[in-house]
Amino acid sequence: MPERGSYDRDLINSILDEALICHVGFVHEGAPVVIPTIHARLGETLYLHGSPASRMLRSMRSGDEISVNVTLVDGLVVARAAFHNSMNYRSVVVFGSPRIVTDTQEKRDALEAITEHVVPGRWADSREMTEKEVKGTLVVALPLTEASAKMRTGGPGDEEEDYDLAIWAGVIPLTLTAGEAIVDPLLRVDVATPEYVSEYKRPV
Amino acid sequence: MPERGSYDRDLINSILDEALICHVGFVHEGAPVVIPTIHARLGETLYLHGSPASRMLRSMRSGDEISVNVTLVDGLVVARAAFHNSMNYRSVVVFGSPRIVTDTQEKRDALEAITEHVVPGRWADSREMTEKEVKGTLVVALPLTEASAKMRTGGPGDEEEDYDLAIWAGVIPLTLTAGEAIVDPLLRVDVATPEYVSEYKRPV
Repeated sequence: MPERGSYDRDLINSILDEALICHVGFVHEGAPVVIPTIHARLGETLYLHGSPASRMLRSMRSGDEISVNVTLVDGLVVARAAFHNSMNYRSVVVFGSPRIVTDTQEKRDALEAITEHVVPGRWADSREMTEKEVKGTLVVALPLTEASAKMRTGGPGDEEEDYDLAIWAGVIPLTLTAGEAIVDPLLRVDVATPEYVSEYKRPV
Repeated sequence: MPERGSYDRDLINSILDEALICHVGFVHEGAPVVIPTIHARLGETLYLHGSPASRMLRSMRSGDEISVNVTLVDGLVVARAAFHNSMNYRSVVVFGSPRIVTDTQEKRDALEAITEHVVPGRWADSREMTEKEVKGTLVVALPLTEASAKMRTGGPGDEEEDYDLAIWAGVIPLTLTAGEAIVDPLLRVDVATPEYVSEYKRPV
């Protein structure tokens, strides 16, 4: 079967680590809300961050269950039959009750992980976060205990009788590609572009 | 301001049309669920489809409100201060109560739109859907009346005093890129790869 679910921890971690963003679902006044945000994984914990004023993070203070989905689109599966068109993907779903991170060290570690998750190598180069900036960021932790992966790989699966048709079939692979970096016009002229920017790619 | 919200219909439509997948949020037994799926827009309506057995689509039969988010990541904004790192993105949120599509013609039109949304030019080339396949697909329609866009563009916004620092800053642009198509090994040898496959790109 090309499509399958899994509780394999390494697979789940690799998908969470490769994806740049996740989609967080929560219930706000009875209605479902879905918001994209940046995440990072540290061991068995998923961290999300944002402004303390954001509706998502305010809602998380309640301790109510949330749901996080991460999806990587790997390819378009073009079948002979329109009905059998599909996508190759890797996806992770996490359910759980978020915990507001109050410990300053855990918060700093999470913010470092989030920075490194997006641009590996960047944290050590950045102007470090001030006490005020750390305080002004809300970080929540979600345990990865209720996490599962789902993926599809491989070519199209057509009906037996359709393989004789003169219709093209196959897969169009898709990747997220970094273009040439756009330098901030206000950058000091003596600062060169670091390799972690010029050689940026996903997966790292 | 680099980050802004908008009700501009053309902007909303262009984001919905460019994104390959959306994330659907719904409430299932009191808990929020987020599921990635393929969508397509026809005029002022967003269509989603799936197996009638899928939890998402079964849940939609209730007529309860759902939420759909579509997000395109355009670039990584690397600021001097870790606190000001950001992403350039274009995102759309839609709220509404889905309607199960029962009219056969509307259903066929939606399935054609979904196929054409993913691989433009493909529908006319495919083995067309049988009556049984159309019946075996659940299609839901969501009006785009409650839709809004949010996006961020441009370079980093650092603190005034940080511009003197010898720290690189700028944007790493990201695009979804199609690789060379992988031909189904079971393809008839006399079938050439069509141009809509070999020249595939997003946005179309």
